[in-house]
Amino acid sequence: MPELRQDPTTNDWVIIARERAKRPDQFTNPRTREPVPEYDAACPFCPGNEEKTPPETAAYRKGQANGKGWWVRAIPNKFGALTPEGSLERRQENHFFRKMDGVGRHEVIIESPHHNMPLHMSDEKQVEEVLLMVRERYIAMAGESNHRYIIPFKNFGVGAGTSLMHPHMQMVATPIVPADLRRKYDVAESYYDSTGKCLFCVMRDEEIALGTRLIRKTEHFVAIQPFASRVPFETWIMPLDHQPAFSQITLDGAKELSHLLRDMLGRISKVLEDPDYNLMIQSAPVKDEEEDYYLWHVRILPKITRTAGFELGSGIYINTAVPEDTAAYMRGITA
Amino acid sequence: MPELRQDPTTNDWVIIARERAKRPDQFTNPRTREPVPEYDAACPFCPGNEEKTPPETAAYRKGQANGKGWWVRAIPNKFGALTPEGSLERRQENHFFRKMDGVGRHEVIIESPHHNMPLHMSDEKQVEEVLLMVRERYIAMAGESNHRYIIPFKNFGVGAGTSLMHPHMQMVATPIVPADLRRKYDVAESYYDSTGKCLFCVMRDEEIALGTRLIRKTEHFVAIQPFASRVPFETWIMPLDHQPAFSQITLDGAKELSHLLRDMLGRISKVLEDPDYNLMIQSAPVKDEEEDYYLWHVRILPKITRTAGFELGSGIYINTAVPEDTAAYMRGITA
Repeated sequence: MPELRQDPTTNDWVIIARERAKRPDQFTNPRTREPVPEYDAACPFCPGNEEKTPPETAAYRKGQANGKGWWVRAIPNKFGALTPEGSLERRQENHFFRKMDGVGRHEVIIESPHHNMPLHMSDEKQVEEVLLMVRERYIAMAGESNHRYIIPFKNFGVGAGTSLMHPHMQMVATPIVPADLRRKYDVAESYYDSTGKCLFCVMRDEEIALGTRLIRKTEHFVAIQPFASRVPFETWIMPLDHQPAFSQITLDGAKELSHLLRDMLGRISKVLEDPDYNLMIQSAPVKDEEEDYYLWHVRILPKITRTAGFELGSGIYINTAVPEDTAAYMRGITA
Repeated sequence: MPELRQDPTTNDWVIIARERAKRPDQFTNPRTREPVPEYDAACPFCPGNEEKTPPETAAYRKGQANGKGWWVRAIPNKFGALTPEGSLERRQENHFFRKMDGVGRHEVIIESPHHNMPLHMSDEKQVEEVLLMVRERYIAMAGESNHRYIIPFKNFGVGAGTSLMHPHMQMVATPIVPADLRRKYDVAESYYDSTGKCLFCVMRDEEIALGTRLIRKTEHFVAIQPFASRVPFETWIMPLDHQPAFSQITLDGAKELSHLLRDMLGRISKVLEDPDYNLMIQSAPVKDEEEDYYLWHVRILPKITRTAGFELGSGIYINTAVPEDTAAYMRGITA
């Protein structure tokens, strides 16, 4: 019989389609990945082509800004979804429709000088540097008065929405708290108002206590496949310390997270045959970084299924994997 | 400069990426569709294979149930995401996680005996029969005490999530009001509480008054590309009379809608070169069919872009088309 599970952090329900569910080792990946060279002269993110991108906002490098010699490089997105210019004022169209300038930032974090080096195959030190760059740019964007929400994310593979092969993450700072997130924050705030506890910390501790969906726990982090996973092999990494925003990760934390993130991406890559995936780092809104109701976390969503009319129309996802089964399977994998 | 627009019906913002936007006639469709035969002996939805599906719940037909002779046929989904059996009781796991049996219905509406006849190429009478079957099954499902929400939807093409080529729609009845929808209904209810008016009717009338995003108005319906469209060529069809749920469409209404729906799907097919698409018919919750705060409507979402990490993590969609431009273009197209 199918099962409805409620995500305690959003109140959204997901359907765990037990009858349709495959065994964890039966998930396959229809995608075939084209071979990618280590260097592509036409790629704007490859070393030597720095002048093809907007000037860098930060880089870990030897040599001069906007030249070669970097190992992680942050740049404005040349075709940014939001841009720093413009006004925060809301305007009305016909006294009913509300709009405003697309004020904000949209940056690209180039993860490696190597055109063909995916994050999970980079060495740990490199992943740590990428995470530190995300933290640095997060802190910088959070310091700008226009910004209300900051989201680092990664689209890996064409199916996950990327158009450039060169390994990169993106970060967007928005001038509003997205309504969809505001509604989810409300769930966490209401829980905090009632219990005095962070909903995400409680959920994390319940998952650790149960253990059935836990993949790996390190000193300061835990990786789980949550109770109400929306897609097969959805994986969350959560800090064990209460930190509302990713800007609060410590240097030691970034080092430890780089190890665990690489491990999880590696296991997913092995199990699902190098799948496309989306990765998001979710934080509290910018002004709520010292509040107690939210915990930042990494969400990894392998893209082996398609979102269709039912999900779009109802917000209910149909998951054809049982999280306890896939988590048990992941526990036995070596990346 | 990019623009942020707020969807008045949900408070969600979308980004209209004006710089990245293409001209309406520049959108192309990377998909190539395989040729499909008129009849496929292996297809469970083709006439003669009725015994390969669960027994029909309704059919417009000559001849005996579950034999040949039908022109529209409704059947339970053999691998239903929800099933009629089970209990509505919520159960707890570890006093924290909440789940329940996946109680509900999941049906398939086979739109035509012809394996290769897409909805927009069917004659109007056939589309009308399909809509009447959706209404009939909606009313039947709404009459069952387990059901709180009913959504008819259509996934056209592999990219939109379908696995069976034979033209069909689906309907799911859920035992809960999905949390994501509840949050959106709250926006409409709050508007109604403040103004005494249906938010969707007001929006519809504003779109008609402005006219810039209106594609076509018939006696009882209007087709628009809404102010805060989430994807290029997103198209809504809304009734001009206040009807909260699709079950309330009249016989004349179904006839008129079949004409307008076929017209809109035909224009989209022409403009975007036969794209994959998702179509949803959104209604008020089952118990709110007589309430004044909601208006049922058809949403058509062409699948020519991919949802990526930013959308998944923020709920903000980036639309690379300007709705006024695409609506003007659609006005000039003959299906």
